[in-house]
Amino acid sequence: MTVVNNGGTHLSGPVLVIGTGLLGTSIGLGLRRRGIDVVLSDISPSTQAVAQDIGAGRAIAEAGPDFAPELVVVAAPPDVTGTLVLDALATYPAAVVVDIASVKDAVLAEVRKQSDDAALSRYVGTHPMAGREKSGPVAARAELFTSMPWVICAAAESAPQSVRIAEALAIDLGAVVARMSPEEHDQSVAVISHLPQVLSSLLASRLQDTPAHALSLAGNGLRDVTRIAASDPRLWVQILSANAGRLVEILYGVREDLNRLIGTLENPLGEGARLDMAQLMSEGNIGQARIPGKHGTPPEAFAKLTVLVDDVPGQIARLLTEIGDTGINLEDLRLEHSPERQVGMAEVSVLPGKRHELTDFLTSRGWKVVQ
Amino acid sequence: MTVVNNGGTHLSGPVLVIGTGLLGTSIGLGLRRRGIDVVLSDISPSTQAVAQDIGAGRAIAEAGPDFAPELVVVAAPPDVTGTLVLDALATYPAAVVVDIASVKDAVLAEVRKQSDDAALSRYVGTHPMAGREKSGPVAARAELFTSMPWVICAAAESAPQSVRIAEALAIDLGAVVARMSPEEHDQSVAVISHLPQVLSSLLASRLQDTPAHALSLAGNGLRDVTRIAASDPRLWVQILSANAGRLVEILYGVREDLNRLIGTLENPLGEGARLDMAQLMSEGNIGQARIPGKHGTPPEAFAKLTVLVDDVPGQIARLLTEIGDTGINLEDLRLEHSPERQVGMAEVSVLPGKRHELTDFLTSRGWKVVQ
Repeated sequence: MTVVNNGGTHLSGPVLVIGTGLLGTSIGLGLRRRGIDVVLSDISPSTQAVAQDIGAGRAIAEAGPDFAPELVVVAAPPDVTGTLVLDALATYPAAVVVDIASVKDAVLAEVRKQSDDAALSRYVGTHPMAGREKSGPVAARAELFTSMPWVICAAAESAPQSVRIAEALAIDLGAVVARMSPEEHDQSVAVISHLPQVLSSLLASRLQDTPAHALSLAGNGLRDVTRIAASDPRLWVQILSANAGRLVEILYGVREDLNRLIGTLENPLGEGARLDMAQLMSEGNIGQARIPGKHGTPPEAFAKLTVLVDDVPGQIARLLTEIGDTGINLEDLRLEHSPERQVGMAEVSVLPGKRHELTDFLTSRGWKVVQ
Repeated sequence: MTVVNNGGTHLSGPVLVIGTGLLGTSIGLGLRRRGIDVVLSDISPSTQAVAQDIGAGRAIAEAGPDFAPELVVVAAPPDVTGTLVLDALATYPAAVVVDIASVKDAVLAEVRKQSDDAALSRYVGTHPMAGREKSGPVAARAELFTSMPWVICAAAESAPQSVRIAEALAIDLGAVVARMSPEEHDQSVAVISHLPQVLSSLLASRLQDTPAHALSLAGNGLRDVTRIAASDPRLWVQILSANAGRLVEILYGVREDLNRLIGTLENPLGEGARLDMAQLMSEGNIGQARIPGKHGTPPEAFAKLTVLVDDVPGQIARLLTEIGDTGINLEDLRLEHSPERQVGMAEVSVLPGKRHELTDFLTSRGWKVVQ
């Protein structure tokens, strides 16, 4: 276990990845791309074989009796993470052990209960804020963590060198390190991840019996709100169970607001009903406006313009080529088009100072810029 | 009032638009582009002046005492729509009168109560499924309705010719006509529009006091679920009030599911708790999968591939130019990148049969296709 580069710690390897699902395999692929020796282990031989086949690392069986990894990454479902961390601390007494489960406090408590201080000093809980709606090693990709936040939750007992190794894992995979206590982390993801998941599922659940003619009117609003309702129930049951106490406190607040809203809708002409509804919608405005933009920019930092495009091959490309010619950077792009017709709108986001220039330019090239 | 074209009714004009907000002004702009004479009226002289200035039509004051519109479009907030429809039916005894409020049953009931059969035969309720998070005439655009569904809710009393004129309005503006009864419409929008709005606002409301370090971890999940929480509270209070009875019935179901979930989270180790959670998430999966794709295609009709791009001017354009060169149509595109880093992912949707071909092609051109 050596520290490479004075400017910052990097991994030397070997790295043992336990669990070769989407995240473990992606970690293996990313580290292999940096030339680091990766050894893979999964309870399912076929899952492990797939991860090996796509180049995420070599089999644990070939590692030999003297195998001494610099770092062990436990990339297993939350339910079994604590046990696997404890096993790894015992089996590899020189290794730093990290896990990447989406909940941190419960795992730390379990590890703490059954470890001495020496073992605990080698453990660091982490959580890469990356994922996909798909799962399994086939969905893995080396760049999964590129530019995404990776939360490092050092415990009081974690040795500074262990924390540096854990952070090196994140940095070497292109992620952005965010430091938080396990409590801060779990409280944060309860709001920004677990709550949206639950409300998206509650909404999507209502669509089970919705007539097709109603669903045919669905616009981007419904699509956006329900997109994450497609996530894997088995994984989410473990996440919700492990963070149940924090999530339920937030859901009490949601229930209170929901009851308030139901009260106004049951008697919409009643005194104060409209004021209550307006209050609730305004509170939503305020909360929504607090979400930071991409690139860590302030909310609403980008100006948007909408351009009409024919939905034929090459149209969007031609538009973006011409935008590229101006040297103005495209910050975001959304396409909008709807059933049966072949004309759509491209919503282009740029820095506010560039909006006027781009509008003039595109109009001069014959594009219809419609706000 | 004449029927143009044997293949289908088109508007001849003049058309009077009452209410020159986002939708009324967009209707004016779209009809003017077809060369139809449009007359504008708004309770606010300055709002009306803006609509005139951007070319949505001429002022009602100039229309003269013999002004006899073919069609009157009431494009006012839901609260005053009924009254304005009744006024228009009385003032213009030869005109068809349509409204475009987002709720239909309440407006029809109000019109019915105060009209004779002759007047009622000239009224048709409609609802264009288009809008923006912005409001006012400045946000208007002639193409707002292009390719979007426009629901036509003929009443039993509506004359067939009145319905044809109402449908001509939608068709002439490039929309896709969907026929429903007012009850079917209100039931449909309660689920696909009002319910997502309310749940998005309830969620966003919880973010009012969320610490900044938690919000900095926000990903596309949270952004997508809360996007529509930015909508105008004044308008939504009117919409929710007018469809209160239907919406509240759906919210009873949501509350039941929420209580069930809260129960499992209060006692996550209790008997059946995990099964209940899994059930709720699975129901979300089922509902989400029923939402049709864009272009009216079946859900999940498109194959997605993710391509790594540097976030510098011209990169996305170059990618899309090369996709365009293949002749493969781009069905959707989403960009993903996150705080502090300048590398992102472009998620490209194409017809499933084209996925393999496109992946091979892009790889051969040096792009990193990462699943």
